Amino acid sequence: MTYCLALQTRDGLVFASDSRTTAGVDFVSTYRKLHVFQPAPDRFLVLFTSGSLATSQELLDRVNRDLDSPASRESLRSVSYLFEAAQYLGRLLTEIQASHAAFLSATGANGQATVIIGGQIAGKPAGLYLVYPEGNYIAASPETPYLQLGEFKYGKPVLSRLASEQLSLDDAARLAIVSLDATMKSNISVGPPVEVAIYRNGMLRLEHHLVMDEHSGLFQQMLERWNDGMRAAFDRMPRFDWEGK
Amino acid sequence: MTYCLALQTRDGLVFASDSRTTAGVDFVSTYRKLHVFQPAPDRFLVLFTSGSLATSQELLDRVNRDLDSPASRESLRSVSYLFEAAQYLGRLLTEIQASHAAFLSATGANGQATVIIGGQIAGKPAGLYLVYPEGNYIAASPETPYLQLGEFKYGKPVLSRLASEQLSLDDAARLAIVSLDATMKSNISVGPPVEVAIYRNGMLRLEHHLVMDEHSGLFQQMLERWNDGMRAAFDRMPRFDWEGK
Repeated sequence: MTYCLALQTRDGLVFASDSRTTAGVDFVSTYRKLHVFQPAPDRFLVLFTSGSLATSQELLDRVNRDLDSPASRESLRSVSYLFEAAQYLGRLLTEIQASHAAFLSATGANGQATVIIGGQIAGKPAGLYLVYPEGNYIAASPETPYLQLGEFKYGKPVLSRLASEQLSLDDAARLAIVSLDATMKSNISVGPPVEVAIYRNGMLRLEHHLVMDEHSGLFQQMLERWNDGMRAAFDRMPRFDWEGK
Repeated sequence: MTYCLALQTRDGLVFASDSRTTAGVDFVSTYRKLHVFQPAPDRFLVLFTSGSLATSQELLDRVNRDLDSPASRESLRSVSYLFEAAQYLGRLLTEIQASHAAFLSATGANGQATVIIGGQIAGKPAGLYLVYPEGNYIAASPETPYLQLGEFKYGKPVLSRLASEQLSLDDAARLAIVSLDATMKSNISVGPPVEVAIYRNGMLRLEHHLVMDEHSGLFQQMLERWNDGMRAAFDRMPRFDWEGK
């Protein structure tokens, strides 16, 4: 399983993901899920994938081949808008899935993958898009300033509560870590290292990029402080009438 | 959708549930999901159901008919152990589902329901059981002192963090409310009123039973205090190295 999360604030974008990949509990491996593309100086893109690892890898291979080949009719270099990048990835996804569908469905396997793409093309606003296995897409919005992939439910309550486009990028990164922590505590197929990247509007490169495993001091500190804060919040809950004050 | 939750502590049991039932977003209704049975002075039982409302209602109707009829070969009155009550409910569940399976599967509908049963039979320890649609069951344990039904993921992180058999019953009830709140904020098909019941070991009746809607002062106070506490915890998170202290 996977948990990837991207937030859009007024100042930029935050990307966060775990690194665990499972094909059953007896085949657990670590794959980085955050892929950075800067195919031309005027654009900066980050790509997350979840779902079938085979489809995800073939997607990245095809994206790179399209960038290599001058003959490709479309690539992350050729698109003029982020939504066109989302459409391009959607087309690749559906092509890859269709190419394997006959054999996969014969064994009952599922080759679906889902993608988040975010970034900026110079002169246009930064943005975040989620591309469905069916090839269509949705964007983040000021009211819902985050997109999630994979095992999204455990990490959502804290986002519903605290996510806002008003957050500083650093706060958005902390929130992403808290949301990842909730997920990792609840589903062992989501696990460290945790990767967090911060993109500030207009930079056309990452401002910060952290990879933190369970032994990382900052990561441990954050999780401990959050845990203590939750316990303190719980201890301060109002009493029931029958308890006295 | 439904979210029901039961916790077992050293002192007793806590039951909590929402009251929203949906058959599509255009058919939303309110049904209490917490059902209390005291079929004889030596026993006290609480039953939660989730899944098909039709199966759930027929289950309750059959449970009551078995209690009414002196001829019934098994009932909540006749069982000697809580696990036998779980087995009895499992048998009823599979019978009801099987009786409707042909017509339900023809329309693609799903008649499955899941049950939590908890309580105490005099002279034996209190307990909590979850009965699967397939008729088998699992019990809560000191290591995992809670069972959940329905839309369980959103409300689980706070349980993984704070649930313990050491909690006072009142704290366990507060934790259940926090877990329900996380779920209601994330899935609109889980909604108030919220029902919370506290059973203290040996009492053979409920010690407390609250039904709180969104206008309940205590409910609002609890959710506000929890929200404030979460924000305070978030504000106290450690800074990244690049932020300075």
